[in-house]
Amino acid sequence: MILDGLSNPTDIKKLSLAELNDLCLELREEIIRVTSKNGGHLGSNLGAVEIIVAAHYVFNIEKDKFVFDVGHQAYAHKFLTGRKELMENLRSKGGASGFPDPAESKYDHFIAGHASTSLSAALGISKARDLKGENFKIISILGDGSLSGGMIYEAMNNLAGAGNFIVILNDNQMSISESVGSMRRYLSKLLAMRGSLAFRRRFSSMLSIFSPKTARKIEFFIKSIISAFRGGNIFEEFGFQYLGPIGGHDIKDLINVFRNVRDVANYKPVIIHVVTQKGKGFPVAEADLTKLHGIDNTEKNKFSDVFGRKIVQLAEEDEKIVCITAAMKDGTGLSLFAEKFPKRFFDVGIAEEHAVTFSAGLAIMGLKPFVCIYSTFLQRGFDQIYHDVVLQNLPVRFIIDKAGFPGTDGKTHAGLYDLSMLQNFPNFTIMSPSSKNELERMLEFALENNSNPTAIRFPKAEAICNRLNYEPFQKSQIVLRGSQTLIISTGCLLDLILQAVDISKTTPTVIDARFIAPFDFVTFYEQAEIHEKILIFEEGVFGGISNIILDKLLKEKRTEIISKIQFVNAEKTPVKHLPRAVQLEEQSFDLKKLIKLIS
Amino acid sequence: MILDGLSNPTDIKKLSLAELNDLCLELREEIIRVTSKNGGHLGSNLGAVEIIVAAHYVFNIEKDKFVFDVGHQAYAHKFLTGRKELMENLRSKGGASGFPDPAESKYDHFIAGHASTSLSAALGISKARDLKGENFKIISILGDGSLSGGMIYEAMNNLAGAGNFIVILNDNQMSISESVGSMRRYLSKLLAMRGSLAFRRRFSSMLSIFSPKTARKIEFFIKSIISAFRGGNIFEEFGFQYLGPIGGHDIKDLINVFRNVRDVANYKPVIIHVVTQKGKGFPVAEADLTKLHGIDNTEKNKFSDVFGRKIVQLAEEDEKIVCITAAMKDGTGLSLFAEKFPKRFFDVGIAEEHAVTFSAGLAIMGLKPFVCIYSTFLQRGFDQIYHDVVLQNLPVRFIIDKAGFPGTDGKTHAGLYDLSMLQNFPNFTIMSPSSKNELERMLEFALENNSNPTAIRFPKAEAICNRLNYEPFQKSQIVLRGSQTLIISTGCLLDLILQAVDISKTTPTVIDARFIAPFDFVTFYEQAEIHEKILIFEEGVFGGISNIILDKLLKEKRTEIISKIQFVNAEKTPVKHLPRAVQLEEQSFDLKKLIKLIS
Repeated sequence: MILDGLSNPTDIKKLSLAELNDLCLELREEIIRVTSKNGGHLGSNLGAVEIIVAAHYVFNIEKDKFVFDVGHQAYAHKFLTGRKELMENLRSKGGASGFPDPAESKYDHFIAGHASTSLSAALGISKARDLKGENFKIISILGDGSLSGGMIYEAMNNLAGAGNFIVILNDNQMSISESVGSMRRYLSKLLAMRGSLAFRRRFSSMLSIFSPKTARKIEFFIKSIISAFRGGNIFEEFGFQYLGPIGGHDIKDLINVFRNVRDVANYKPVIIHVVTQKGKGFPVAEADLTKLHGIDNTEKNKFSDVFGRKIVQLAEEDEKIVCITAAMKDGTGLSLFAEKFPKRFFDVGIAEEHAVTFSAGLAIMGLKPFVCIYSTFLQRGFDQIYHDVVLQNLPVRFIIDKAGFPGTDGKTHAGLYDLSMLQNFPNFTIMSPSSKNELERMLEFALENNSNPTAIRFPKAEAICNRLNYEPFQKSQIVLRGSQTLIISTGCLLDLILQAVDISKTTPTVIDARFIAPFDFVTFYEQAEIHEKILIFEEGVFGGISNIILDKLLKEKRTEIISKIQFVNAEKTPVKHLPRAVQLEEQSFDLKKLIKLIS
Repeated sequence: MILDGLSNPTDIKKLSLAELNDLCLELREEIIRVTSKNGGHLGSNLGAVEIIVAAHYVFNIEKDKFVFDVGHQAYAHKFLTGRKELMENLRSKGGASGFPDPAESKYDHFIAGHASTSLSAALGISKARDLKGENFKIISILGDGSLSGGMIYEAMNNLAGAGNFIVILNDNQMSISESVGSMRRYLSKLLAMRGSLAFRRRFSSMLSIFSPKTARKIEFFIKSIISAFRGGNIFEEFGFQYLGPIGGHDIKDLINVFRNVRDVANYKPVIIHVVTQKGKGFPVAEADLTKLHGIDNTEKNKFSDVFGRKIVQLAEEDEKIVCITAAMKDGTGLSLFAEKFPKRFFDVGIAEEHAVTFSAGLAIMGLKPFVCIYSTFLQRGFDQIYHDVVLQNLPVRFIIDKAGFPGTDGKTHAGLYDLSMLQNFPNFTIMSPSSKNELERMLEFALENNSNPTAIRFPKAEAICNRLNYEPFQKSQIVLRGSQTLIISTGCLLDLILQAVDISKTTPTVIDARFIAPFDFVTFYEQAEIHEKILIFEEGVFGGISNIILDKLLKEKRTEIISKIQFVNAEKTPVKHLPRAVQLEEQSFDLKKLIKLIS
């Protein structure tokens, strides 16, 4: 294998063109092999292979800085920077993370789990370089999906004076879910103009028969004519020099373009528009693009699936229901809804800030918006939730998916802060389901609740069916009546807790706290008073339900109750990329630890 | 007064052109009068008078919906919608808020305190309208400063299919602080092309001598030629029909253009580029633009001023110091730094997400970034603080200004959530100064601390000088040694607390908790054990220092200490727009209440 022969990351520079091509084939095989074993992002990583190989070949990885955006196109880069062994255990214990991370390798120059951050980070690096009088290139590898996020434009608005700053726009012609949006349409328009580009090239070579002066005049005339057809270029208006579009799977072409950009003094930032094919080299991936954004073996009865089926059922009877997501259609279970109610479905792209305020606009008009966003990405909407939803007390329904431990995506995707974030706000109903049936009842409740914002949060986990009584639907339910220990469970931790109770052969009282806010203090007080020990479980950092309960108990001076309480939360230190079950175990939610706690 | 004669908002439609012009003069006088009395945003409100009058004249305020962005250009709109009396007490008790608010008037269709939200809100309203089969126009009045915020582009990326959607771009040729950025340069370019516009108009009228068919052909030809010079238009690429630029102070022109836009069926969103003059009609305001963004009578020794002077002094000795702000140069005290170290100063525009990640990029290169943002706007950076700063443990220094009660800006600007936000994160040093000297020492500490992120938060308040001992600089200091009651003070609440102690003639122990995180538990435990009652004060919602202390005490099962504690926090219900001193009084920080608490 050529890959095995590369002992230093810079050894790639010694390879011939044929060897580089072979290297690309090898990298594809490796990527397919490790993702089929460990899961991960297949399509985008396969699409970026030639870009990464050519960039490693042309630029100096020991000196120049690569900033990825988003990170799920960087596997080839990891293979090329001494992480072959780590990649063997991709997204597993002791293995490589699915995203670039400076803590993993000195060749990862900036973290990249969330999208649209690279230009901001790269601009910071570039200004620092200039101030320090250092001299290197910054290469940002930017997926087209990231162009839907507002941060990119905030950075583009600040491009002035950024030299030796190269952006490779990896345009695989789709964002995560589908090709939506003005920017996508605009990129396609640029692609469609490739013909005129070839025409321009031909013209330029013809010019050599004229005297330089005449040639310049003719060239100016031709350029004017071409621009009449081409229109202006958004990237140029923002201050970039725009090159492209060029094909993204021809190593030779890529090397030529990258070399040209490398070798001229760049006083202006340059953006190279490269067209790639998602899933390139993997027939199934090429064919079934949406599915292959991420590979996952399990399916069917996750909370997302339950939500997806139930919201369709509700929407058939209530035409005021609209659903909004930010490039997470499949992930949040909205595919069926989108298919059945295309006019009532809005995928706004990777644009959480917009998604929240857009939903507020829908709600102020009396519609019933369900905005479906992963917990980690909802962090982008903190200000909009406060300013546009809470202050106007609008009944926006937040469906917060992947809330809790993030599993193999790791720390950049931790869903541990949503409760701490939302508990700040007055008049915000927050629920978390323990089962399939409960989620369904919560959705019915949220639909009916037109008087304030609501959130339903659940992890990426199987929704079990249980036989709790849901009539009438109460804020909390006593699942087991026992003595001595009182357990307050939120969300699907209930299942784990009931297992622990079973094994421990103890008889605690267990309350399923369906409503985190407003919390059912009546039942709580009733039970808290007659128990000696109280355990409160929440899949998030200390500061969610814990805050809601403590705030009240302290205000009412019920310290005799506080003295009985032990909160069980996620730790604040960033989690490792491991399966959610292992993350639960490694922290306080291990079955053995639970049994010990209860006993 | 014409204004007095308008008993209904639609009465404006009966006025003659001359009366409309007089109305504009009256509105200017009124705006100048009420802001000189109560403070507020003068320049932008004066600049928008004709736009608002013309829009009220042309559109149907009883049916069409106006969405402002940002809100500080809406005073004329408030005067025209039955709020003359409320405006008399602008930003004061019982008076109008400085921003649009549906809770204040049915003619305010969406809240607007933070920037760049209007297109998202208006798109939500427009999609809801279409789904419900209703029929009205949506008019967004968008300041050019808002174009630096990423949300606007997220919304523009989702414009497809939005009809009867009109954006009036109020281009006063500057963002809050100064004209920075690619978008600003681009708008100026559009302005410079007004000549070619006149040329186009002349050509169009000449075409009437030809047959319609020939005229169309010639028109097509001319348009091609013009576009060769003009280049494409960013707004058009994003899906808008772009009109303008037109002058923003000629009522007749504005009415004509607005009418044309109103009367054609708009299948596409339209953006009308209107050029206005900030502070129009107020000679001083016209001359001194930056100062007049907001009027404020007090000055000189606020925490911001102390920070502004100290950072210059530190920067003279450490060239690694760089300062970043997001259109808050003057507000955060950075004017002098910007003047002295222009290359080390970055005002990125209204772009908090970018500001945070950009600072992370600077820090990863070994520079020492101080990023200066108001507490309320830092909410926009929650995700970036977590993902780009905390996960990489970068020594970015956050200077969080206006942290605490927001004063007369009111609920949209509440700085009460920053502590609750930051306490989520591991390894984050959070300080809050009680005095001028303390802030200076904290800045020195933050500068030296290269091992993790740091925040210093303070309100918009006078920094008193005190004579506490700062050698060595400790995490907390016992200010008064007494008995029975232990008071933990954070930030400049100390002054208020010491006043209360003085008056109450009691002898509590008072600790100035300089470090909120890591909190000085050694001193705390020592004192907590020997006191009977513990009061903990924080200018923010429950969940900041309270969380840090409770987390530890609960983990260490020190419930005997918890039982002594009473936390004094801001309430979660949105604050009214009142002076900060009154806000403190109305909640738990009233001197009388404090005296009662202590005694």
